[in-house]
Amino acid sequence: MGSAHSPSCPATKPSMLNVHLVPHTHDDVGWLKTVDQYYHGDRNNIQHAGVQYILDSVIDQLQKDPARRFIYVETAFFYRWWRQQSQNTRRIVTQLVNEGRLEFINGGWCMSDEATTHYSAVIDQMTLGLRFLNDTFGECGRPRVAWHIDPFGHAREHASIFAQMGYDGFFFGRLDYQDKARRMKTKEMEMLWRASESLTPPLADLFTGVLPNGYNPPEGFCWDQSCNDAPIRDDPDLEDYNVDEIVQRFLNVSYNQAAFYKTNHIIMTMGSDFQYENANLWYKNMDKLIKYVNALQAKGSKVNVLYSTPSCYLQELNLANLTWPLKTDDFFPYADDAHDFWTGYFTSRPALKLYERLSNSRLQTCNQLEVLGGPKSTSGPFGEGDSDTMSKAMGVAQHHDAVSGTEKQHVAYDYARRLATGWAHCEVLVRNSLAVLSGSESPRVFCENLNISVCPLTESSQKVLYFSMNVYNPLGRTVSWPVRLPVNGSLYSVTDTKGKTVDSQVGNYVCMSFKLICNIYDMKSSSLLLLLSVRWFHFSINNKSVLMYAFKFLKVTFDDTTGLLSSLTNLETNQTIRLTQNFYWYNASSGNNKESRQPSGAYIFRPNSSDPFVINKTAEIQIVTVSSTVQEVTQWFSPWVSQVVRLYEGHRELELEWTVGPVPIADGLGKEVITRLDTDIESSDYFYTDSNGREVLERRKDYRPTWDLKQTEPIAGNYYPINSRAYIKDDKHQLTVVTDRSQGVSSIYNGSLEIMLHRRLLYDDFRGVGEPLSEPGEFFDGLVARGRLLLTLTPPNMAADVHRPLAQGMVLQPLLSFQDGTPLANTKLEVCRGSFSGLQDALPPAVHLLTLSQWDKDSVLIRLEHQYQAKESKTHSQPITKLFSTLEVLGASEMSLGANQWKEDMNRLQWNTGTKASKPLPLSAKDPSPWEVTLNPMEIRTFLLQLRQL
Amino acid sequence: MGSAHSPSCPATKPSMLNVHLVPHTHDDVGWLKTVDQYYHGDRNNIQHAGVQYILDSVIDQLQKDPARRFIYVETAFFYRWWRQQSQNTRRIVTQLVNEGRLEFINGGWCMSDEATTHYSAVIDQMTLGLRFLNDTFGECGRPRVAWHIDPFGHAREHASIFAQMGYDGFFFGRLDYQDKARRMKTKEMEMLWRASESLTPPLADLFTGVLPNGYNPPEGFCWDQSCNDAPIRDDPDLEDYNVDEIVQRFLNVSYNQAAFYKTNHIIMTMGSDFQYENANLWYKNMDKLIKYVNALQAKGSKVNVLYSTPSCYLQELNLANLTWPLKTDDFFPYADDAHDFWTGYFTSRPALKLYERLSNSRLQTCNQLEVLGGPKSTSGPFGEGDSDTMSKAMGVAQHHDAVSGTEKQHVAYDYARRLATGWAHCEVLVRNSLAVLSGSESPRVFCENLNISVCPLTESSQKVLYFSMNVYNPLGRTVSWPVRLPVNGSLYSVTDTKGKTVDSQVGNYVCMSFKLICNIYDMKSSSLLLLLSVRWFHFSINNKSVLMYAFKFLKVTFDDTTGLLSSLTNLETNQTIRLTQNFYWYNASSGNNKESRQPSGAYIFRPNSSDPFVINKTAEIQIVTVSSTVQEVTQWFSPWVSQVVRLYEGHRELELEWTVGPVPIADGLGKEVITRLDTDIESSDYFYTDSNGREVLERRKDYRPTWDLKQTEPIAGNYYPINSRAYIKDDKHQLTVVTDRSQGVSSIYNGSLEIMLHRRLLYDDFRGVGEPLSEPGEFFDGLVARGRLLLTLTPPNMAADVHRPLAQGMVLQPLLSFQDGTPLANTKLEVCRGSFSGLQDALPPAVHLLTLSQWDKDSVLIRLEHQYQAKESKTHSQPITKLFSTLEVLGASEMSLGANQWKEDMNRLQWNTGTKASKPLPLSAKDPSPWEVTLNPMEIRTFLLQLRQL
Repeated sequence: MGSAHSPSCPATKPSMLNVHLVPHTHDDVGWLKTVDQYYHGDRNNIQHAGVQYILDSVIDQLQKDPARRFIYVETAFFYRWWRQQSQNTRRIVTQLVNEGRLEFINGGWCMSDEATTHYSAVIDQMTLGLRFLNDTFGECGRPRVAWHIDPFGHAREHASIFAQMGYDGFFFGRLDYQDKARRMKTKEMEMLWRASESLTPPLADLFTGVLPNGYNPPEGFCWDQSCNDAPIRDDPDLEDYNVDEIVQRFLNVSYNQAAFYKTNHIIMTMGSDFQYENANLWYKNMDKLIKYVNALQAKGSKVNVLYSTPSCYLQELNLANLTWPLKTDDFFPYADDAHDFWTGYFTSRPALKLYERLSNSRLQTCNQLEVLGGPKSTSGPFGEGDSDTMSKAMGVAQHHDAVSGTEKQHVAYDYARRLATGWAHCEVLVRNSLAVLSGSESPRVFCENLNISVCPLTESSQKVLYFSMNVYNPLGRTVSWPVRLPVNGSLYSVTDTKGKTVDSQVGNYVCMSFKLICNIYDMKSSSLLLLLSVRWFHFSINNKSVLMYAFKFLKVTFDDTTGLLSSLTNLETNQTIRLTQNFYWYNASSGNNKESRQPSGAYIFRPNSSDPFVINKTAEIQIVTVSSTVQEVTQWFSPWVSQVVRLYEGHRELELEWTVGPVPIADGLGKEVITRLDTDIESSDYFYTDSNGREVLERRKDYRPTWDLKQTEPIAGNYYPINSRAYIKDDKHQLTVVTDRSQGVSSIYNGSLEIMLHRRLLYDDFRGVGEPLSEPGEFFDGLVARGRLLLTLTPPNMAADVHRPLAQGMVLQPLLSFQDGTPLANTKLEVCRGSFSGLQDALPPAVHLLTLSQWDKDSVLIRLEHQYQAKESKTHSQPITKLFSTLEVLGASEMSLGANQWKEDMNRLQWNTGTKASKPLPLSAKDPSPWEVTLNPMEIRTFLLQLRQL
Repeated sequence: MGSAHSPSCPATKPSMLNVHLVPHTHDDVGWLKTVDQYYHGDRNNIQHAGVQYILDSVIDQLQKDPARRFIYVETAFFYRWWRQQSQNTRRIVTQLVNEGRLEFINGGWCMSDEATTHYSAVIDQMTLGLRFLNDTFGECGRPRVAWHIDPFGHAREHASIFAQMGYDGFFFGRLDYQDKARRMKTKEMEMLWRASESLTPPLADLFTGVLPNGYNPPEGFCWDQSCNDAPIRDDPDLEDYNVDEIVQRFLNVSYNQAAFYKTNHIIMTMGSDFQYENANLWYKNMDKLIKYVNALQAKGSKVNVLYSTPSCYLQELNLANLTWPLKTDDFFPYADDAHDFWTGYFTSRPALKLYERLSNSRLQTCNQLEVLGGPKSTSGPFGEGDSDTMSKAMGVAQHHDAVSGTEKQHVAYDYARRLATGWAHCEVLVRNSLAVLSGSESPRVFCENLNISVCPLTESSQKVLYFSMNVYNPLGRTVSWPVRLPVNGSLYSVTDTKGKTVDSQVGNYVCMSFKLICNIYDMKSSSLLLLLSVRWFHFSINNKSVLMYAFKFLKVTFDDTTGLLSSLTNLETNQTIRLTQNFYWYNASSGNNKESRQPSGAYIFRPNSSDPFVINKTAEIQIVTVSSTVQEVTQWFSPWVSQVVRLYEGHRELELEWTVGPVPIADGLGKEVITRLDTDIESSDYFYTDSNGREVLERRKDYRPTWDLKQTEPIAGNYYPINSRAYIKDDKHQLTVVTDRSQGVSSIYNGSLEIMLHRRLLYDDFRGVGEPLSEPGEFFDGLVARGRLLLTLTPPNMAADVHRPLAQGMVLQPLLSFQDGTPLANTKLEVCRGSFSGLQDALPPAVHLLTLSQWDKDSVLIRLEHQYQAKESKTHSQPITKLFSTLEVLGASEMSLGANQWKEDMNRLQWNTGTKASKPLPLSAKDPSPWEVTLNPMEIRTFLLQLRQL
């Protein structure tokens, strides 16, 4: 089957205004309740919602009339439901799908957040959901339309991903209220979104529509059990016959809506959060609505109302053959009123945001080792392991009330628990796989708490005289990575795989830096014990100056009176900037001021003043560590804010490891804590933020590219999400910050970049979560968050060469595992062996191995990505070829990004923009041979490889 | 088909504890919303409830598994639903009914209130519902079980009615908490209720069961969409698998419940208010419960759980062949805690209670005239009329949140509106019928507001120089009835049907008394203009004494200093009692005292002191009217309390017409207004109240016949409902009060009887209605209520001879209608003609014509009632025979009281009580011939008469 021109779409009437009623439910994969509580309908005292019943009821009701339609979106729920159904029900559902009466829309495991997710995890969760639909229903189950009706702002990278996945269109509900007002006026509610500056159109072009009522029905037409609108009372013998009144109201609503759209088709979303648990209420009343509204056609009415779906509506828009406006920026930040900017959630729940990011790294490792270890990975000496549990946990964690931080506290715990459980399943798989790969079946532990210097195995020196560490690097290339281990002894002999002793140093922990030369396609050294030789760096501290050097790369100075950073120098390029860094907190509005009652909350950022309070004008430098591998300065700002400044041997970045919390609230003031970097870079009003960790967008203070902004919140209205990096620059300097998780950033002053790190608030912000964002920590004292910012200073045209690999290294971190005793005694020293050589020896710098995972018994899914944007790197922003070796790969078939369609079958709808005819272009440069692929900047290519059974 | 031994009942296991799950919904025919709002699911913001969806959903779900069962109760709703269903749905439902999967229980138009309803209206509403079921489903639709799970206390007369209607058993939910505790302890939760002291057992014997959890499911097992209990989560892969925990909890609940009941069968009501709107939730979880609980039988569990119905459960109880305790009193008053007596609603909404009672009178008149006027009644010179609308309006008005006064204000208005609409339909019928009967088709008006002296026709003397009045008497015998009409002129010539002038008197209104000699079976004088000759009575008022005489029957004295009544004398029997009467108000608790937070409200009566405040210690006598027909003394107690004391010529009762309101609440005190009669009768702690207007029960202060009462509310805990009368007595004197509506009464002191007249409160009483009972009046000033108490003084053994006919005359009042001009000019003088002579000329004093209504084209339903209890009247408490004439009746078939079964087919279950074997006795004395029927005291006999077409 080709494009979305489904033969199952209902007939419309060309001479009339066609109103497409789209019955739908919006089922959060966790929010006020956990995903399983939502599925079961448990804890309805929190929120009445039970997805099992929604699907039961909808399937029942669809059978009652072939005209009725329904769309379903969240595969995480549908999957749970499907597995509990009888063969008979499955047969019925399959028929409904085949007839287009039940249509899957979006179809990912969840409806992902767009501000706080990383593209890697988004692609995974989409693939997980789409694959289930594909495996279960085939082509008729393939969603044609992306549907992000609830996320709080929209990322360009998401649109790009959807385009590459083959979606014909995209609908959403939330955009800035000023933007919406303008678009209604100019009939630009529907547009073509050109979602990449690198990919050749129409590769990342996505038709995008703004829904008229968010995702709700028009006012007065909500017939769910959760609504209180009047039902259609068409029995003239009973009270309050209201058919005429309702029909007239519907005609008015339809004409009003049509005034904001271009065609004689309009869409109405007939549903909302967890609706259709009793679908009869909706359908019974919509049946009557359709009957009575259309009955007026006989009297000359020109309104035709019908059950429809987004893809059928989209098909009509496409057939209208109009010219559509072009959109090239994104839809951040989102404000639904003058003082209601949804920019707080960019940072909300910083610990969950980190854990989600680390879990992605672990999942990629788990996936890779499942491939590399072969069948024994999932059933081996350590038992039954799997990567599915982790995939699903990551799938729900991408939800727009998960990693976004906008869920209730107990639900946040549940997401974390799921990730932990997922990892527990992966641990078994990883143990099995490493046993296969290393030949050592002795027990292996993973130290989860190294970030707070806890690892029972390495610490228990009484019991364990010897231990060994195994490092797995999921990146496609060698990286240098610092390792620090807590130990109890004071003298350790550390040897490498060759048995050669390396120097080590004991303070509170062993701190090692090692160069990973082991990678997944070259397994020669996948298990390592590495230490570099110790070298003392120049380091001085006195009343005049504090200086840190990292070899030849960086120099950092501290102000002698304040203890703050004062400058940063790139010794290679010989450039220096003034760099002052400090911590501040915005006083969160409690909602009691005259402009608006809006307080800061999980979603909303609203400082009650544009001037943040400084935590401390000076920092106390309390600890200094200087070793062969690292230099550290610890700055204490207050009992609840500190920072370690580090330079690692061989690294080009300055690491700022901040610790914030418990944020005190005894003063009755909610606090939104930022760190601000103030430099002499002439950035003016401009700064730059990434979109879902990939392409970078230019931001400008108090400005939006597509409309004349009336700025009403000078701070919150200038915040944007980052997922992995932000930068400011002028002609000479670019200061780039790479982060370990998603955060909110802004640049309020020339040369300044501020990053929000943590938030603790006293009020709910009236967007439904019903809790103030005040995360408990140990002993209920408030959460302590810790994280890292990596700073690089370069000329602008060299920045990407540093920050691209730096960010990928932050995303995919090496996995450390430990074994009692030394593996040298009873197993081969040379444990790194190449068991999978489907790829050539080393990935070129421009190429990132995005996905390597077992697809089924005989095939492996692989995604290769060009990780540079067009023009950002002199060296790397070029097409690059040659990747597959022909050795072990029996066949390679290219797929859509979502892996639910062969690339050659993709045939998306075409749309005209006013600017130029967007003709279908070749989606990628031609590959030189079947075993060689060419990647253009920012391109991701997805292949299913048939492998020789290992 | 015979008794309730339905072959469709599910199999049970004799060796196990059988748990009968009874899926049910309790659908109030109006409460927080109107009956039609409940049907439609309108105004769900008030309460989520939509009966149309309940029935849709249940029918869907029943089809999914033949084991599933459901009972439905309220025919008012089922009727609305049924008429909107397709033939296919009707076919499905009929099959479900035939297979016992859908079973009708109770089956009246509503679930009537038991404290504030009159038996006449109760029998009518039951008949209305049962007839619909019978006509629609035949024998399989006939309810076997009466089911009053919600009414707030239980009347013995209701049980008697149910027994006579052929019900095999009766279940209810609410009884005094002390009573329930005792019954649980002694396993007397199920019993045989001997519900009449007059009828021969087992005629009024009714097996009665107290449900274990009111009508709710056991705690933790409510799976409705309105509940928050945990669903059964039986997917081990999802969170919180809870099957084992739930099964164990269910077993515990079952064993705990079984400890309070006698057999190895227990019943669980699985449902509650307006539940099953999404029946899937209930059935899906109950399916799992049954599956997992019964699965344990394989491991030795002795609990067997099954879908069942009350009648199937009852059948098992009957088969157990045990001895059951006997109950002979009633279940009033109802308290659900020490300070929570539901005795306020006996009086709540006094105006609605009166309007309902008057509407009953009008409906009986309408029914009778439909029969008498023949087919032209419903389609005649004044258009289309019907009695159905009024029947249905009366049907819903009997609901336990209708005439009870416990509905929201807007719903009370709706009930009144329905009654008014019903009467509007009846008015057309009555006009048509009277046109047929009188031969006059000139316009005829009904003056609705004579009670407040408003009647535009009679008042507009400028326009209408002449008018005539037509009186229809629905009673089966002549009555004397005072008529007062507002007029504007000062001189009227009043003539009777013979054209003879009668004296009249003009004050503010014409006041006439006339002896009705026209009745429905002897139509010779159904249209009358009557006045008696004027006679001046002795009447004096001065500083010493106020005396009133009514011919030879009564003498009343007033205290010269207080203006209050001081004595009452029966001149015939020559007996005198001291009689002081005054008005008081109890200060309603606001819920702020230390024993309990319970305030007075629509349901609950809770004075905050046992001593009421007197309105005024003295009354001002302001108006005195003395005429040939009436003597009146008006007493003013305060601006909001007054009374007219009247004696009518020829009458044996003293009339007290009280006016109370607007009850002032500006002082912040809720008020419950009583009038108290204080006498020198040595009544001790005893007093007497009627049950639904029929048999009288003895009451005793601080005492219950069946358990050792711990009295916790000295006033509220001694209140009982009356529907038509109450009395106190000693050896010599009986003071009987006949009322015009249902009220609450008590006797707190020796010789005292108090009647609650009106209530105006400031707080809701936490029983769901969510409003304080504070009825608005004109200009929002609070409702003014007006009513009549009729007092008679007799020796005890002569009291019934007076109060029985007096009360029936109050219930069935003459209908007055008026025509412009005089009918004498253009129509025959002699308008009373006998057009129906199916009955003999006059009913004997003991016999009351309870029902005379058109059943279908060819037949008429008639109910004849012996209106005396056994032993209460020397003259009348005897069997009485001879009623039908053979002249026009082609056939007469006796039916059950509910008219849904031939009497000869009635075959009720038999039950053993410990006292003596209750063998089936002849249900009635043998009739001498087919055209003669014999009535025993308190017996009602129901016949369907085939009439010669008139």
